[in-house]
Amino acid sequence: MFKVGIIGATGYTGEEIIKILSTHSRIKITHLSAVLDKEEPISNIFPSLKGRVDVICEKPDAEKAKDEVDIIFLALPHRVSMEFAPTFLRAKKKVVDLSADYRLSPDAYKVWYGIEHKDKGNIQEAVYGLSEIYRDEIKNASLIANPGCYPTSVVLALAPLIREMAVERECIIADSKSGVTGAGRRPDLALSFGEVNENMKAYKINEHQHKPEINKILSSLAGEETDVIFTPHLVPMNRGILSTIYVRLKKKLELKAALNLYKNFYSGRPFVRIYDEGKFPQIRNVVGTNFCDIGIKITGGACVLVSCIDNLLKGAAGQAVQNMNIMCGFDETEGLI
Amino acid sequence: MFKVGIIGATGYTGEEIIKILSTHSRIKITHLSAVLDKEEPISNIFPSLKGRVDVICEKPDAEKAKDEVDIIFLALPHRVSMEFAPTFLRAKKKVVDLSADYRLSPDAYKVWYGIEHKDKGNIQEAVYGLSEIYRDEIKNASLIANPGCYPTSVVLALAPLIREMAVERECIIADSKSGVTGAGRRPDLALSFGEVNENMKAYKINEHQHKPEINKILSSLAGEETDVIFTPHLVPMNRGILSTIYVRLKKKLELKAALNLYKNFYSGRPFVRIYDEGKFPQIRNVVGTNFCDIGIKITGGACVLVSCIDNLLKGAAGQAVQNMNIMCGFDETEGLI
Amino acid sequence: MFKVGIIGATGYTGEEIIKILSTHSRIKITHLSAVLDKEEPISNIFPSLKGRVDVICEKPDAEKAKDEVDIIFLALPHRVSMEFAPTFLRAKKKVVDLSADYRLSPDAYKVWYGIEHKDKGNIQEAVYGLSEIYRDEIKNASLIANPGCYPTSVVLALAPLIREMAVERECIIADSKSGVTGAGRRPDLALSFGEVNENMKAYKINEHQHKPEINKILSSLAGEETDVIFTPHLVPMNRGILSTIYVRLKKKLELKAALNLYKNFYSGRPFVRIYDEGKFPQIRNVVGTNFCDIGIKITGGACVLVSCIDNLLKGAAGQAVQNMNIMCGFDETEGLI
Amino acid sequence: MFKVGIIGATGYTGEEIIKILSTHSRIKITHLSAVLDKEEPISNIFPSLKGRVDVICEKPDAEKAKDEVDIIFLALPHRVSMEFAPTFLRAKKKVVDLSADYRLSPDAYKVWYGIEHKDKGNIQEAVYGLSEIYRDEIKNASLIANPGCYPTSVVLALAPLIREMAVERECIIADSKSGVTGAGRRPDLALSFGEVNENMKAYKINEHQHKPEINKILSSLAGEETDVIFTPHLVPMNRGILSTIYVRLKKKLELKAALNLYKNFYSGRPFVRIYDEGKFPQIRNVVGTNFCDIGIKITGGACVLVSCIDNLLKGAAGQAVQNMNIMCGFDETEGLI
Repeated sequence: MFKVGIIGATGYTGEEIIKILSTHSRIKITHLSAVLDKEEPISNIFPSLKGRVDVICEKPDAEKAKDEVDIIFLALPHRVSMEFAPTFLRAKKKVVDLSADYRLSPDAYKVWYGIEHKDKGNIQEAVYGLSEIYRDEIKNASLIANPGCYPTSVVLALAPLIREMAVERECIIADSKSGVTGAGRRPDLALSFGEVNENMKAYKINEHQHKPEINKILSSLAGEETDVIFTPHLVPMNRGILSTIYVRLKKKLELKAALNLYKNFYSGRPFVRIYDEGKFPQIRNVVGTNFCDIGIKITGGACVLVSCIDNLLKGAAGQAVQNMNIMCGFDETEGLI
Repeated sequence: MFKVGIIGATGYTGEEIIKILSTHSRIKITHLSAVLDKEEPISNIFPSLKGRVDVICEKPDAEKAKDEVDIIFLALPHRVSMEFAPTFLRAKKKVVDLSADYRLSPDAYKVWYGIEHKDKGNIQEAVYGLSEIYRDEIKNASLIANPGCYPTSVVLALAPLIREMAVERECIIADSKSGVTGAGRRPDLALSFGEVNENMKAYKINEHQHKPEINKILSSLAGEETDVIFTPHLVPMNRGILSTIYVRLKKKLELKAALNLYKNFYSGRPFVRIYDEGKFPQIRNVVGTNFCDIGIKITGGACVLVSCIDNLLKGAAGQAVQNMNIMCGFDETEGLI
Repeated sequence: MFKVGIIGATGYTGEEIIKILSTHSRIKITHLSAVLDKEEPISNIFPSLKGRVDVICEKPDAEKAKDEVDIIFLALPHRVSMEFAPTFLRAKKKVVDLSADYRLSPDAYKVWYGIEHKDKGNIQEAVYGLSEIYRDEIKNASLIANPGCYPTSVVLALAPLIREMAVERECIIADSKSGVTGAGRRPDLALSFGEVNENMKAYKINEHQHKPEINKILSSLAGEETDVIFTPHLVPMNRGILSTIYVRLKKKLELKAALNLYKNFYSGRPFVRIYDEGKFPQIRNVVGTNFCDIGIKITGGACVLVSCIDNLLKGAAGQAVQNMNIMCGFDETEGLI
Repeated sequence: MFKVGIIGATGYTGEEIIKILSTHSRIKITHLSAVLDKEEPISNIFPSLKGRVDVICEKPDAEKAKDEVDIIFLALPHRVSMEFAPTFLRAKKKVVDLSADYRLSPDAYKVWYGIEHKDKGNIQEAVYGLSEIYRDEIKNASLIANPGCYPTSVVLALAPLIREMAVERECIIADSKSGVTGAGRRPDLALSFGEVNENMKAYKINEHQHKPEINKILSSLAGEETDVIFTPHLVPMNRGILSTIYVRLKKKLELKAALNLYKNFYSGRPFVRIYDEGKFPQIRNVVGTNFCDIGIKITGGACVLVSCIDNLLKGAAGQAVQNMNIMCGFDETEGLI
């Protein structure tokens, strides 16, 4: 049994990792920690875990934790993970970081996250954990930069077309709609029920910090600079991201050919499902699962892609465990639906 | 035109008072204030008011405000209103206080709100603003203790039966379900969408601070000590309170007689609607209105009452304006639906 | 007092028209009808109206109704309105039709609504009731084709830019998100709470029947053929449409100039609000009002527009009353917020 | 591997049974059927199952189905199950019936479900599948009458106190609040999002068909006639039942003693969790699980109990699988969380 720990166990993402791991046959949870007033069983914080996972949640101490685990999940805010990762890496422990700290170049990081990166050396060691695209690299990685929720939904939908260089790269639009848990578990008037329910808004229009992450990966897949216009929206639901993506096609593409392209691209990838002609994914088809569902429409000279994920699973905790499974040589689907 | 001000204009209750007053033909809004970082038009804080009410919202200053108004609404938290009311009362201005500060005796206040009352002298001047029951007293009042949302829903439903002394007073149960805005507009993890949506809970079981308020008024109506078991619940909706109330009847009561009792009791009261046999109110019938809707079921030796109000209107801002209308000699329904 | 009737009074749109008219100072409701099992007070069907509007809702009979009204609202499904409108028009009564029956040419109607139009003669008499754009024509109209909810939100946002011919017309994308009442009030598994809540979906991608309506009006404003890619989405909220609209600019446009263009275009139009730089509308700012709020972002060579309306008000009942006000010479804002 | 079938596979309960069984290590799904227009993979009906369970869903045919299964789940409406169960029982197959058809005596059934029972002979063979109370009987049963959702939440909360004869039986009140999936998956205006969202209502006050089921089991546990006043409510959430239960205590009971009573009563029952002093369950703690969580408050001479279940799991599909596990000698928790 691998020993697994989670730092940042009291967020929504931490809760989901715990729930997945509680049914995972190859590991045991040996460490949970988070910024807390007092150390207590995690089931006091998440009563749904009562009787299922009653491990004590401690205050964070990387030195202590590194001796208790083989693999550590950092379910921490941006700017905090880079304080913890080096200790585990030096101790030769595997790290899956769910923050943005190892996803961008140091320069881009400074621009988008507003501070100088504190662990630049490890950025180039990090493998971007978009499991379907970088599975081979993940197998040998010691540090995973687990993708952001929006980039997962946008990049998986665009990757096959982009790699075919089939789209006009200057006219790609990703209009994404997310449930509220994507904003984290914290007191904030803007996230309160009275403000969010019966409401909807666009925010950080083409200025969201996931934009450079999307463009970095797409540019790499395309082999040339790619710039998506990206608008995230907040929707009154707990979970799920639906991205509607619009591209201009460089040349005529039949729907049948497009569907084949996608099905081939994701062949052998158990968590991507391509919908048949005339069918499109809905949030409810993926909530509670690690799937990314994709539907395709060709209309005029444009292609409209619709992708759905559970932001806390394929967009965070589920993909993190999927990456752990790949890194550790477990079945890729172990513990996941 | 009467000059009207609101202190605490940036909460949900303040917002609703402003919206009502913006269509009121007899007054103009001359003062808005709240604890703020910077003074700015109220329509910056509530963009729905843009172009409708663009009055500057200032930082609170009772001395300044008292010269700008004929009547002041205190839409303030408990323990804060009593710091403001005396200034206005000394200046002979009318005060409608939406907090609990003038609803209980000084002793009860200390028990339930945890501090010594700072304006005991005015407590006995205050009239409890349950408009349908105390209309005559309200006409001549200078200080209104506007009722709590739960007490409004429970007391209006019980008053006719209680005054008839028709119920076993030791076995009255009020099971109330409230939308989330009842908890105020503030950052609080427990009120965040991710915690409230797809969830429901009971809280402060028989320990809520509205319990002594309910019991005080019911005891007064009954002419003897009355003790309700009161359980509030939080429901994933923005607005509305539905109270299901269970009483044992002292003697046989036909439904027809009960309906007559209620219709007579509330005759001439434009905002209480009694439902006919077999019909019961729903939250959606009252949201956005100042109505309290009541349905009655007689079953075995028990009577089950269902009452619905909009917690922000009949349970707060609407009733406050109704009281202003009565105090100022306006039509009781002016500005209200 | 003008005598006003509504046919189709039991849908969400009918309900809203009744609520608005109940506070309107220049009219009285003299006729309500709908397909019903039995005729009964409208307040039995919508208990929120109890004591406010208790007019009997009858079964539809155009011949009878035409003698009871000066103006009739047809809040009927597509394909049904054209059965009723001619009777009223022959009797020289004013008609506001909220269906799509008089919005398109006969040929386009047949393509998009699947049947031959039965009242072609009146189509050319109809004025498209987008109040802000066609106010002068509406003044003298006898038949208003009240706009669809999506077209209202998309066309108001695009009109100033389109008329300036400032956009690449082959690359306009309208990604619209609607609350559920837009689909009407009827039993349908796909609209049930268990299917819609905690879910979101795109539907009729670039195939929605509002697409030709959008394109017809935009082409007319642009003076040349314009083809928008239009994707509607269903969002778990009762009311509201948020449209995010993406256009490529033909030439450089500063945000300041864009804001001026919009503010001038909608000068004297009380129900369109243009947001200042860096601010964007949210559904909650317009729900319960007749406003259309618009925000503008210039980013790279693109312009992103965000518009919000209440689909039942500015997108249906509110605009219908606004049009009645204009037709009848009332204050344009009478009865509306 | 046991062969398992589900008749009524396309309702919410059927969907949940399928999801649970898809991860169950001891069985395989060999039959799915439901009233359908055409036979197709169940994953066409529930796309979330795509790639996980693609079994064809057939039209119901008991004769054919009985040869394909060792155990059958009847996830059918009341009045329909009794048409199917006899075929399987005659063939010596185990039956778990999720309808109410085998829960009441023939006389009570006629009163509450309005028709003569068609399979009276098997009613007395049926074991009431409240797993925690009747585990021994379930082991040897061939026909399980799986409990209703409300009775599960009410009876589990009351059983320990009732069996101690500690309560005044004539004054028991169960105020239950349910999510919308409890009403089934079907087109119905009253269940549509626009009617349910931002709304709440009581319904069938003390007249719900689960009332006799509650009273039958409680009377049996108490050893004398027990009559609960039972009010169900509809709450705008997909899943979960919270019951708030009020009883008068016959004699003084300390909270500590009450907690001990409950913990002992449910000792060895993995799916009932008793909360410590001052803590109460919430819907979110049980949604997605088979747990029934119970909190206890002693206040004055009364006891207030709060119980929470997921109506589709412990209130239906989860308990049905739990009963299958017990009947078949599997681990009671297999496949369940």
